[in-house]
This record gives sequence, structure tokens and C-alpha cells, in this order.
Amino acid sequence: MDIIVTRPSATAKEIRHIVKKLEKMGFTAHISKGTERTIIGVIGDTSKITEDETGAFQVMPGVEKIHRILKPFKLASRDFKSRDTHIRIGKHTIGGKRIHVFAGPCAIESRSVLVKIAEDVKKAGATFIRGGAFKPRTSPYSFQGLREEGLKILAEARKKTGLPVVTEIMDPRDIDAVLKYADIVQIGARNMQNFRLLQEVGSHNKPVFLKRGLSATIKELLMAAEYIMAQGNSKVILCERGIRTFETATRNTLDLNAIPVLKNLTHLPVVVDPSHGAGKWDLVAPMSKAAIAAGADGLMIEVHSKPEEAMSDGEQSLKPAKFKTLMKELKAVAKAVGREM
Amino acid sequence: MDIIVTRPSATAKEIRHIVKKLEKMGFTAHISKGTERTIIGVIGDTSKITEDETGAFQVMPGVEKIHRILKPFKLASRDFKSRDTHIRIGKHTIGGKRIHVFAGPCAIESRSVLVKIAEDVKKAGATFIRGGAFKPRTSPYSFQGLREEGLKILAEARKKTGLPVVTEIMDPRDIDAVLKYADIVQIGARNMQNFRLLQEVGSHNKPVFLKRGLSATIKELLMAAEYIMAQGNSKVILCERGIRTFETATRNTLDLNAIPVLKNLTHLPVVVDPSHGAGKWDLVAPMSKAAIAAGADGLMIEVHSKPEEAMSDGEQSLKPAKFKTLMKELKAVAKAVGREM
Amino acid sequence: MDIIVTRPSATAKEIRHIVKKLEKMGFTAHISKGTERTIIGVIGDTSKITEDETGAFQVMPGVEKIHRILKPFKLASRDFKSRDTHIRIGKHTIGGKRIHVFAGPCAIESRSVLVKIAEDVKKAGATFIRGGAFKPRTSPYSFQGLREEGLKILAEARKKTGLPVVTEIMDPRDIDAVLKYADIVQIGARNMQNFRLLQEVGSHNKPVFLKRGLSATIKELLMAAEYIMAQGNSKVILCERGIRTFETATRNTLDLNAIPVLKNLTHLPVVVDPSHGAGKWDLVAPMSKAAIAAGADGLMIEVHSKPEEAMSDGEQSLKPAKFKTLMKELKAVAKAVGREM
Amino acid sequence: MDIIVTRPSATAKEIRHIVKKLEKMGFTAHISKGTERTIIGVIGDTSKITEDETGAFQVMPGVEKIHRILKPFKLASRDFKSRDTHIRIGKHTIGGKRIHVFAGPCAIESRSVLVKIAEDVKKAGATFIRGGAFKPRTSPYSFQGLREEGLKILAEARKKTGLPVVTEIMDPRDIDAVLKYADIVQIGARNMQNFRLLQEVGSHNKPVFLKRGLSATIKELLMAAEYIMAQGNSKVILCERGIRTFETATRNTLDLNAIPVLKNLTHLPVVVDPSHGAGKWDLVAPMSKAAIAAGADGLMIEVHSKPEEAMSDGEQSLKPAKFKTLMKELKAVAKAVGREM
Repeated sequence: MDIIVTRPSATAKEIRHIVKKLEKMGFTAHISKGTERTIIGVIGDTSKITEDETGAFQVMPGVEKIHRILKPFKLASRDFKSRDTHIRIGKHTIGGKRIHVFAGPCAIESRSVLVKIAEDVKKAGATFIRGGAFKPRTSPYSFQGLREEGLKILAEARKKTGLPVVTEIMDPRDIDAVLKYADIVQIGARNMQNFRLLQEVGSHNKPVFLKRGLSATIKELLMAAEYIMAQGNSKVILCERGIRTFETATRNTLDLNAIPVLKNLTHLPVVVDPSHGAGKWDLVAPMSKAAIAAGADGLMIEVHSKPEEAMSDGEQSLKPAKFKTLMKELKAVAKAVGREM
Repeated sequence: MDIIVTRPSATAKEIRHIVKKLEKMGFTAHISKGTERTIIGVIGDTSKITEDETGAFQVMPGVEKIHRILKPFKLASRDFKSRDTHIRIGKHTIGGKRIHVFAGPCAIESRSVLVKIAEDVKKAGATFIRGGAFKPRTSPYSFQGLREEGLKILAEARKKTGLPVVTEIMDPRDIDAVLKYADIVQIGARNMQNFRLLQEVGSHNKPVFLKRGLSATIKELLMAAEYIMAQGNSKVILCERGIRTFETATRNTLDLNAIPVLKNLTHLPVVVDPSHGAGKWDLVAPMSKAAIAAGADGLMIEVHSKPEEAMSDGEQSLKPAKFKTLMKELKAVAKAVGREM
Repeated sequence: MDIIVTRPSATAKEIRHIVKKLEKMGFTAHISKGTERTIIGVIGDTSKITEDETGAFQVMPGVEKIHRILKPFKLASRDFKSRDTHIRIGKHTIGGKRIHVFAGPCAIESRSVLVKIAEDVKKAGATFIRGGAFKPRTSPYSFQGLREEGLKILAEARKKTGLPVVTEIMDPRDIDAVLKYADIVQIGARNMQNFRLLQEVGSHNKPVFLKRGLSATIKELLMAAEYIMAQGNSKVILCERGIRTFETATRNTLDLNAIPVLKNLTHLPVVVDPSHGAGKWDLVAPMSKAAIAAGADGLMIEVHSKPEEAMSDGEQSLKPAKFKTLMKELKAVAKAVGREM
Repeated sequence: MDIIVTRPSATAKEIRHIVKKLEKMGFTAHISKGTERTIIGVIGDTSKITEDETGAFQVMPGVEKIHRILKPFKLASRDFKSRDTHIRIGKHTIGGKRIHVFAGPCAIESRSVLVKIAEDVKKAGATFIRGGAFKPRTSPYSFQGLREEGLKILAEARKKTGLPVVTEIMDPRDIDAVLKYADIVQIGARNMQNFRLLQEVGSHNKPVFLKRGLSATIKELLMAAEYIMAQGNSKVILCERGIRTFETATRNTLDLNAIPVLKNLTHLPVVVDPSHGAGKWDLVAPMSKAAIAAGADGLMIEVHSKPEEAMSDGEQSLKPAKFKTLMKELKAVAKAVGREM
């Protein structure tokens, strides 16, 4: 049910016009006359009313405001599916009691560097390898990734360690290559509203790791998940990775509030990326612990053996020794909130 | 020249290490010892230092902060080209004394509706037709555009009126179709950092209408232009269309400050879209006048004959009669600031 | 009329409980049952329902959301008073056809400097002098103003030029001193929600120049005006002076959208301060023209004879010669939009 | 040491002029000539250079940008005092290993309600009572607090429970009353830059609970602490309570990143208020755990026996039973990160 509030100046004729339009669309109008305004309740399955149709009502004479009652996302909502979604990848289940850590370098730089890092993070307890072959960089003059060569290196690291891999897709034209090598396909923050790319990954069966855009609301993140799910792929992992605010002391503002808010609204698993979120390696440990305490299902953490030689994001990467210490500390926090690692 | 500031605790060895790394890269280090910190000036062509290399310095022991002196964009900067860029399309020149208005509906809905609007806006003084065939919509359930069919209708409207057309591309796979029909290719706000799409339109010769992302800084907008220009296409028109802030009284906050700031930093033309920027039709007129008074080279305005039946963005569209009145008022403002319309 | 939307899980008993509470408060409940939710329309004078009472309904079992229909400000709203408020100060009327310019230095530094600037801005066409005696500074180590001594200097400048003066109050304990010397009392952006100070200036009869807080919504600005008006003083001049956003190219983001939005919502005059709003002197001219084109009733502009020696805000001050040129250009823009200067 | 970067167009004369001004102020200028720009290092105790003086340099001919090296706060910085500040109140120490919880209603409503809540929170493990006698409300028509009557009730609750009390001051004219009854004086978010009020509480010896403003940067929060400390009162407790962002799913965005960032920059204790920060009672538990996991020294939590009858902020208050459960869960998290409760 939706609500249309009329202006104090609305005439009886204008109200009749609105009611007629609603009835033509198959709805029943329920009219409440107040002292100043009339309120029209729209009865029927208003989830079918699109944003465009809402906008069209908005400009009708006599209309002051429209209040929508239903959420604009359906498949992603907990109203639609109340139990938590569990996504099975190899022997791991994301979204259950166990917390998963996706660790690795920002960009894949070479076979030897990646395999070494993969072995280190595995030993420390990570269950997935992360690493970018296609890199979205602010500058056209920055390193853009090894592309398909990088994907092959990633597959080798998986073979060596047994850890499944997550990697980003930036262009629908790369879908075949990425599907061939990745266990999870990542949609980066800057592409969260690249709707064609969402539709492309939605039309395959591979799990999708969907990062929240820098200035995307939680509702918009869920609408992006809905784009993927509307194509038939319901294996979506949501990732909070920092939003853009006025604060400049951190690269972004990691929004941990998003964890309990998402857990209320959706059944999809929620992972947090404190490396991008805070943007400095010394904030990664406290924010990782906080994310787990707030109820996250996993963490994505950048690890690099030599951050000072990293080709991308060295500032926010942990060295393997620091990562190992952090993993121990995280286990204690996970246990304190009834989770496993 | 860049500047590296050391921590008060930096040792002589750490500083030597930094200096050596700079010298290996071909730079000269110029050291100033203060009472507490040492400052290392980097002498040489530091424009070649990438963001990644900067990040790598940032994590070296002893480094507190790096101050970059040069702007990260080059081809787009006024330092590189001091005179305003004029972009010639048909008989029109964008970026010169004359102010251009790009008018039309948000989405192309049908041949008859588009041609009628195109004729109306031409009569009122618009010099370009706008209209979307591929529509980026927040919801997968909203109207997504008529696609290639829409492009053909757009071409017909051009034929009827003689006005060149601007339309959006969302997917690099649509490049041939869009190039075939459009006079200017638009990159929408949500795709401003879709770097592959930027590279695609950069590798052709067609003028590009580049909209600022909802939460993109002015520097990032110029970096996106740089992506296009780095591929060889320097015909880029920048468009301010509202940023996301905490204010909810308007759909977005149209940032007119961007006009003079951009005019200082770049030689590219700057257009303003008050329809998306403010998001309500009754704000379009005052914000259009303000944009011209602040120095904009053009305006993109949504016009629809029946906003209450529009398939997209009816709330922010002007009816042709209101658009006509506005065009008259704009002429007076343009004249007051020494421009023509 | 307000609207209470219930949860799909709300029981009949919960709904009866809500209805009873409404009836106890003197309202009539109008119930519409939809397929999933029940909507309760609250009929009666809901303008008397406070925020606190709304919050109390919000936590009642069965309640999902409350939509408020009426604006939370009354005296400041155009619904309450449809005609523009004209504030008469000396021979000037603020809020009418004539646009007024409040010019002068950020801080009052000395008698000779202020009188010279006052004479210069008068010659150029300014109608009010601005100047701070009490300065709100981010750092306790910055110049805090000449205090009462500054007020006396301001009064001297008025005597010399005949221009009325506006100056800021920061502390309710200074009210007598400020009332003695000022023609308009300014509430600075950082004190926009210093409610005790608002009540203090509201309980006198002197016009108040109320600056929008850096992160205040337009609604909150109007609520601050309401605080003043609720005490009996309706002579409030609103001032947009830039909001805090993610953009760092400008000190603040001057929000010109606020002008037409405020003009729709309130009858109070609206002035713009482009000096603080944009924070750089070379942005003052384009943003001043834009403000007038968008419908502002006045401008507050910082002018200083020697910005490089100013004790505060030198970066954003215009020199008298530049101010004089700007005033000429502004006259042309004012005329183009049907105003006078 | 500070750095002045010149424009490429700066003349030798302009540079000499800058150097002379520096030397007059007692500094030594250290000049590095790059290929395009000259960089002037300012050697000497630049911590004495005020913001105003920096601004004055900024507008000198030839100057492009000034980079400040030193932090603008001193007494509050960890550079000044490396060990954590411990604030002793009664038998409690804030800032040590033990985490403290400040619990109670938003506003003091009556003796019986407050005493009951105070007893409940004490039983659950809270160590301080919070409660407002002077309430900063957005609307002049909302409940403004019981004022001095409320302070007396607060003192009674302290007597009954033995728990020390924290309460807000809004007006310097109330200082005597507040000092008489409170153990800690709170500066609310809206008054964080009410500099006169900061100076007032700084000139007494009572501990100050300083809340971060809704749109205050971390640096500005520390500058506000510096205002208090510059008057001689170094007993300042910082409180993160949510910032204003574009996200509307939560009332504010509780910025937990601020905890580790503050812990790096300052020696002062850091408390988190998840009730105001997130604004909904069901977010309080996860965000409280997260705050402790991230390193907070304490929590301020709103508790009310009957939130649906609360006179203020009922939406975000926990009932005593929920608070008791939360306290147990918090102890487990505190232990996991090496703290006590």
C-alpha cells in the first residue's frame, strides 16, 4: 500500500483525476479527508508500481507528496526470504556461523609474489585469496593490472594452496576470461551502478562479491544486488568498504553501521573490507575486530609481503606477520560474539 | 617537484634510504633539515611519478607525509593548454562566446513524442537535442530505454529539426550503434569512473559529454576526462549535474562552485544540468540563470510535453511553454555577463 | 494530518492500542486496511504533536513508520504568511525589490582600517557594513576579535558613512553590548543551533542575520529561525554561506539551490555569503552573480584593503578595486532578473 | 617547519618578498629551486604561526600553496604527551584498562523515573549516570528539560546509587548550577564549536565530556579539546556520537574509525555514544560491541524504562532488561581485546 498526500489547495476534480488513474491501473483508492489535506491510500499490490509511475503521479495537479510503503527491492529483502542465505564455494559456506577471511594483494604483480602471499595467508587462517587482474585506477597513467595473465597467476595460486579465489571484473567483454578462472566474481565499488555489468554477472551462476559504492546508500546497494538477482543469480555477497564523507583523516569512512542495518533488511551475507575502508594499514586491525563484533560474516584484507614495493595500495596493506597476529586476535573476538573462524 | 616530510623519529639511515630510492628513479633529492623534521625536495620531472609509486614511498620507514605539487591530470589542465578548447559540432561551437542549450526528454519514448518535443525546443532556441536510448536506472524493474530503436528515433528527430543529438552510452559493446547515430556521446554520472567505457569513447573521434559523478570531486572529474584524452580524443565537454550531500530538500546539490573552479583548472567547456542537479522542475529556472551567471558554457535541460506521463524523470522536466519562457529570461542573463545565446 | 503505517505483523490489539492513544490526545483515527499493512490517518490539528510524541509512537508495538505531513516550522513558513517579509532598517528595506550588499572586513582590526574600507564599499554601492568584534575561531591561538572595543569602532564607521552595521554575537552575556552598537545582530554558522543564543536574540526587537550551519539542512535553518520567531522577534534574515561536503577544491560548497528552495518554503529574506561559501577571493565574483540570478535578496561580501595583512580570512577577501568592478557587474545581472541595486 | 610552494610564474622579487616577511617573523627560509617551482622551507618554531598568518601568506603574490607540517593542536596531541591521560572521578579512572559505561535516560523527566533507571543500570554494571537537565532540541516546541530542578533530581540519583553523574551545559550562564551538581560536565555535539562555552568549562577544574559535532572533523574535535585545555583544564573525555553523511538508513553514521585515529593523535580518553550515533535501539548492541573491539575507553548508552513514554529520544533507548543482556555480552568482547569491565 502506498499513500498519496494532496496539497491543501487540491480541488475535488484533481482528486477524482488521481483516483481514476489509480483505478485504471487496477488499484482501489481509499480516501481519508483531514482538516487540510486529503490522503489517498492505494490498495492492491503496489510493489508493481515503478519509480517512473511514482514520478508521474508526483507531477499530477493537486499532489503534494507520495509516501512509498514497500521497499523497492524484493528478492534481496528479508521479507521475501527470512532465513540467512548460505553460499557454498568449494568446502566453504559463506553466511553461516563461520567467519571467512579473503586475503591477498590489491593487484596481482607476478607469479612468485602472489604464490608467496597466498601461502602466507593460508597459514595464518585465510580461507580465500583476493587479487586484482583488472584494476580500476583513478589515473590512466597508473598500473592497470596484468589482465588475463593475472587471472592465470591467480589460478596457479589456487592450485598451490587449495584456496578459492575472488577477482574483479570491470568490463562485460571480459566475462568469459573471468568466469574461467575465478571462484567468485567481484564488482568493484566504482561499478556498483554499472547496470550492464550487474546484468552480465547476474546471467551466470558464479557467486558475486558486490562492493558498496563510495557514495551509495544501503538501499542502493540492495538495489544493485536486486539487479543481479533479477537475472537469476542469487549468490550475492555484499561488501561494505567505506563511504565518502567530509572527514579527511581517513581515506574513506568505513560504515560499520551498515552491518546491522543490512542484517535487518536482507538475507544476503555481509563482508567488510577495512583495508579500502579506512585506507591505512594501522587502522585495519581495530576496524577488523569491530566489524566482527558488529556481526560481519567475513573480512577482505589486503596483505602484501613488501608494501613499499606494491604496485597498488601499498599504504593499506598488512605484512604477513602483522596479518598472522591479527588473525589470532580476531579469533578471540569471533568467539566472544558466538562465531567461529 | 614533490616534497617528502619525515617523521621526527626518522633516522639518518632511513633518510639515506629514501634519497637512494629517489636517485635510482633519476631524481635529485634536496634536503632541508628543520628543528624537528627533515624535508626532502624531489627535483626532476615528478609528473612521471605515479600514484602507486607515491604510495610506495608513503610506507617507507621514516616517512610522515608526501605533498604532491603537480596536478595528477595533464592533457586536461590549463597549464598544458591555456586557451579555451572550442569543440565544433555541425555549425555550432561549444566553449566559445555563445551559450548552447541541450534540451529534450530524459528517455526517448516514441517517435511522435520525441519529434514534437524536438520541434518545440528548437523553436524556443535550443541548439542540441538530448534523449536517452539506454537508461541507467536504479531499479531493474524500471524502464531501461528503447535501445537501438531509440537511437533511430533520435536520428529522425535530428533529420526533422536539423539539431545535432547527444545520447548516453552505458556499455562498451554498444559503441558502434551509438557512434552511428549520435553527434555527441554522453557518459552518465554513474559511469564517470567506468574506466573501460572512458577508454572506449577515448579511442574514437566523436565529442564526449562527460557528466560528473554524484560523489566525484572536481579533480576526479578531470582525471576521468584525462582517461578519454589519454586515448587521443580531446573533444571532451564537462557537465556538472549535482553532487550527493546531506541535504535532502533537493534530489542532489547542484554545485555551481564547480564552474569557476573548473574554468581555472581546465581549458575544456563546462555545461550544467539543472534538471538532474536539483531534481525538481521549479528549481530549473533559477538554477539555469545562476549557472549562466557563474560562467557556464551551456545548459542541459529536460523538456517533456506531458511530464505526468513521462516514462522517466517526469518530476524534473519542464513543459515546452515554461522552457520557452525560461529561454527568454536566460538570454537577458547571458547578455548581462557578456555572453550570447 | 499525520500517517502511522503498521508492520505486516501488527495485531488487532496493537492497532487498538495506537488508536486509543490517539483518541486520548484528542485526535480521530481513520483506518485503512491494505493487503499487508494497516494505515492509520490522524485527523485533527497534528501541528501540535511534538517530535517527542512522534518518537513515543514510533516505539509502540506494531508501528513500522510515521509519516509527518505538516512542516515542523510554522511562523517561518509561507503557509503561515504568504507574502514576503520586508525588514526595514534605517532607510533600507531588506526582502523587497532592491538587492542589498553587506560589505566589510571579516574582523575589525583598527579604527583607521575599518573606516577606510567602509568608505570604499559605500562608494562602490554597498548599503551595509559588516565586521566582526567577537570572532569564532577554530583555534584558541587565533585572533579572537577586539570585543567591545571593536563594536565602538564599528559604530564610528557607521557615523562616518551613514551605513548601518551588522556584527556577530557569540555569547548571550554580550547581548547588551551588541544591542547597543549593532543595527543587525548576526548569529554565525557555528552557533546556528546554539539554542540559548537564539532565544536570547529572539527576545529583543533587533533584526537578526542568521547564518546556515555548515552541515545544517534547510529545514534545520528554518527551525533555527523558528526558535527566534517563537520568542516574538520576526525580523530574521536568512543567510546561505556554504555547506560541508566531500569536495575539497573549495573551502565549503556554496549551496545556491537553497535560494529557490527557501523562497518556496518561507517568507523571510535570503542573503548569500560567497566569501565564506567558496572561501577563495577569485570565486566571489562568479558566485555573487549566480546568487543574484538565482533570486537572492542580498550578498554579504568580505572586503579588505590589504588581504595579505588581514588578521582573519585574508584568502577570501576582495580588494576595494575588485569589489567596485564586481558591484557594476552585479547591477547588470540584477537588472536582467528584474531586481534593483 | 612549514613549506611554501610558489607558482611557476613567481618572480625573484616575489620570492624575496616572502623570504623577507619570514625573516621579520624570526624564521629562516630554506630555498629549493625545482625545474618549475621554488619551494621555501620555513625553519624555526612554526607552531607559533597562526592560521591567520598562514592565510596572509597565502594571498601574497607568487604563492601557490602552503603545506603545514605541524598539527594545529598541541596540548591535546600525543606528540606533546605520549602516555594516555587517566581521569580520576570518585573511585573510577577513565582512560585506563577498565571500560566505563555512562547510562541513563536522554532527559531527566521525574525523580521516580530517574532513580529507578539509575538503580537498574547500576545493577547491570554501569559506572556513571547520564541524564539531561538542559536539552538542546531542534524544535522550540519540544521539551527543553527540567533545568535546575533536573540537576537536583540527578544529584538525588547519585546519592541513592553512589554513581557519579554527567550532564550537559548549554549556556555559560548556567555554569554555577551545573558545577554544583555534576561530576562531569558535558558539551553537546551542537555546541562543540561554541567557543565561549568551551572557554568557560576550560576555566574550571571539573572533567569535561566533549561530544564531536555532527559534521566536525577529527581535527576540529581536537581543536575544541585544545580550547578547553588552553584555559588550564586538561581533564577532557572525547566522545564520538555519529556524523552526518548522505546515508539516511541510520540517523547519523557512527564513525568508529575515529577511535583508532584519535588514539594515534591524542592521549585523551575516547568514549562512544551508539544511541545517538546510530539513532535506533536495535543498532545499539552491535555498535557497542564494535566500539569496544575498536578500542574505545567507554560507552554512553541511553536507557529508559518506558521508551514509548520517554519525553525525548525514545526511539534510541534500551529497556533495562536489554541493557543488562548487552552488558554481559560487552564483558566478553572487552575481555577478547584485553580490557576489563
